[in-house]
Amino acid sequence: MSLSEARTIWWNNGLWIIDQTKLPGSVNNINIHSLKALIQAIKTLQIRGAPALGAAGAYGIALAAYFSKSHNAQDLLQELEWAGSRIRSARPTAVNLSWGVDRTLRAVMNVETVEEIKEASLREAECIADEDIRINKAIGRNGSKLLEDGDNVLTHCNAGRLACVGWGTALGVIRSAVEVGKDIHVYACETRPLNQGSRLTAWELAQDGIEVTLICDSASGSLMRKRCIDKAIVGADRITKDVVFNKIGTYSHAVLAKAHNIPFYVAAPLSSFDLNHDEAAVCVEERDASELSILGDVRLAPGGVEIFNPAFDATPLELITAMITERGVFKPPLMPII
Amino acid sequence: MSLSEARTIWWNNGLWIIDQTKLPGSVNNINIHSLKALIQAIKTLQIRGAPALGAAGAYGIALAAYFSKSHNAQDLLQELEWAGSRIRSARPTAVNLSWGVDRTLRAVMNVETVEEIKEASLREAECIADEDIRINKAIGRNGSKLLEDGDNVLTHCNAGRLACVGWGTALGVIRSAVEVGKDIHVYACETRPLNQGSRLTAWELAQDGIEVTLICDSASGSLMRKRCIDKAIVGADRITKDVVFNKIGTYSHAVLAKAHNIPFYVAAPLSSFDLNHDEAAVCVEERDASELSILGDVRLAPGGVEIFNPAFDATPLELITAMITERGVFKPPLMPII
Repeated sequence: MSLSEARTIWWNNGLWIIDQTKLPGSVNNINIHSLKALIQAIKTLQIRGAPALGAAGAYGIALAAYFSKSHNAQDLLQELEWAGSRIRSARPTAVNLSWGVDRTLRAVMNVETVEEIKEASLREAECIADEDIRINKAIGRNGSKLLEDGDNVLTHCNAGRLACVGWGTALGVIRSAVEVGKDIHVYACETRPLNQGSRLTAWELAQDGIEVTLICDSASGSLMRKRCIDKAIVGADRITKDVVFNKIGTYSHAVLAKAHNIPFYVAAPLSSFDLNHDEAAVCVEERDASELSILGDVRLAPGGVEIFNPAFDATPLELITAMITERGVFKPPLMPII
Repeated sequence: MSLSEARTIWWNNGLWIIDQTKLPGSVNNINIHSLKALIQAIKTLQIRGAPALGAAGAYGIALAAYFSKSHNAQDLLQELEWAGSRIRSARPTAVNLSWGVDRTLRAVMNVETVEEIKEASLREAECIADEDIRINKAIGRNGSKLLEDGDNVLTHCNAGRLACVGWGTALGVIRSAVEVGKDIHVYACETRPLNQGSRLTAWELAQDGIEVTLICDSASGSLMRKRCIDKAIVGADRITKDVVFNKIGTYSHAVLAKAHNIPFYVAAPLSSFDLNHDEAAVCVEERDASELSILGDVRLAPGGVEIFNPAFDATPLELITAMITERGVFKPPLMPII
């Protein structure tokens, strides 16, 4: 199995993930030995990315079942409902986390024995994980037609295999284009404050031998002005009927792309769409100030200074040239029927 | 002397600077004991900011004279010419460095004795340093009229007292507005990769009790969309007849400000104007890749990954609502006569 085929989250006598907070320094696979540990892993971004969180939500239910001491199905199902609500609240913005939890809970709802619930929840989680890779490869195939040989493509954050079970969404499109022989060069924004661009995107593209240049987030405008960027592709944490929620900075890149007449694509599975809601209904997670004020042993900002650190921003659909999904490419306001 | 009156560079039986690479952790005043040490301090950004570099260029000539062992005026002047060319090349983009060197060299050109050259070069450097503060206070007075009570003002990088001998240009405007009783809240962009926004701007505003909120560079667009920002003010490293060179990211903020109908101001002394040249004539300094890949003991990007790290970008004048100088406020394409 090549590195690009490796999974970000998998089951092997228990739940395993790659600890993404340790990349690119070291590739640590860690065993998630309790529901509490999974929730902690989600909160600290040891596992992150909307599609990966979908699988994490599903595996979380399987994990709760696996470790349960309940002796009857009724008690176990109640326990899993409670586990589900704890998992859902670990991160509020990405819709996939709830989606993975809910789908796995539905799969066991009418199962009658403890043993069968344990098996059925794991089966559903494994099914979601397998599906994720198939879906991302379909997104990749659909999106790769939008990229031309020689394109310079801007991306923000990490919507790669590390944000999914495998292959990736935005980076999956790039992988699929490279797979069919197109020469693609990626500009990866470092993505402050947690540097998913430098730590994860640059790492996974370099692993796959895809040409990548790392830049500061604020350099995208200047590169667009100098005609160094042909297209931009990002992932999504949640797509409502009016906006795309994605990593803070996405909106700035989208406005800049529009101003320079550069196509701006969003690649996401249908499980990231939440078309019953609009922007106002979604809570944008604010993360700890220390993410901007301290890095390793270096103090970047004076103690006590006010810091505003939203994890996401909202990009109106009219700034998005097209949405790339497993079901095809949609030009907003046209949206997939889900 | 209050902290906000303290100078960034000064002469006291030799040349002293605040080591800006140590802020906000500690306030280290260091004695610059040779021309080589000054050039190193400029290259490593222990001293930085266009107006401060003007004074550093001037003091550099005084320093070279001070330490010279030349016994006749002719030899000393040759030595100072050579020192000037070394200082000028320490950083290529900010025009003030050359301006400070050239002005001090001109002041000693016709001086006839070694002792008088030493005195005259130091006198000229002290004069430039004193002038810098007077000029910045004039910029502040002129610019403060553009700010209204209650304004939320975005700034990028550090165009504060630490970028000058004192008071500041962009932050000088904010200081002057606060001094006349206006309530101003500043959004400081952290300014990757060297975090002058978090390390310097947040620090000096907090020292002065001016309300400041630190944000990621990429969050400016989202804040503008949410109507949290009323105005933007930045400094400049060089203003040519067509563009403003300033810290990487300035152009992105300017395009975003235009898209959201937010005034975008540049505050700079006339010594930063270089109206005989255009964008194409200016070399944009590219800095070391390690500024993006390593921070303290943390590796942010995998070794060997390609990194593009320009220190500056160019913002066309049409994106600038007005230039704030010591001689008044100019709306491009109108430019000060210098």
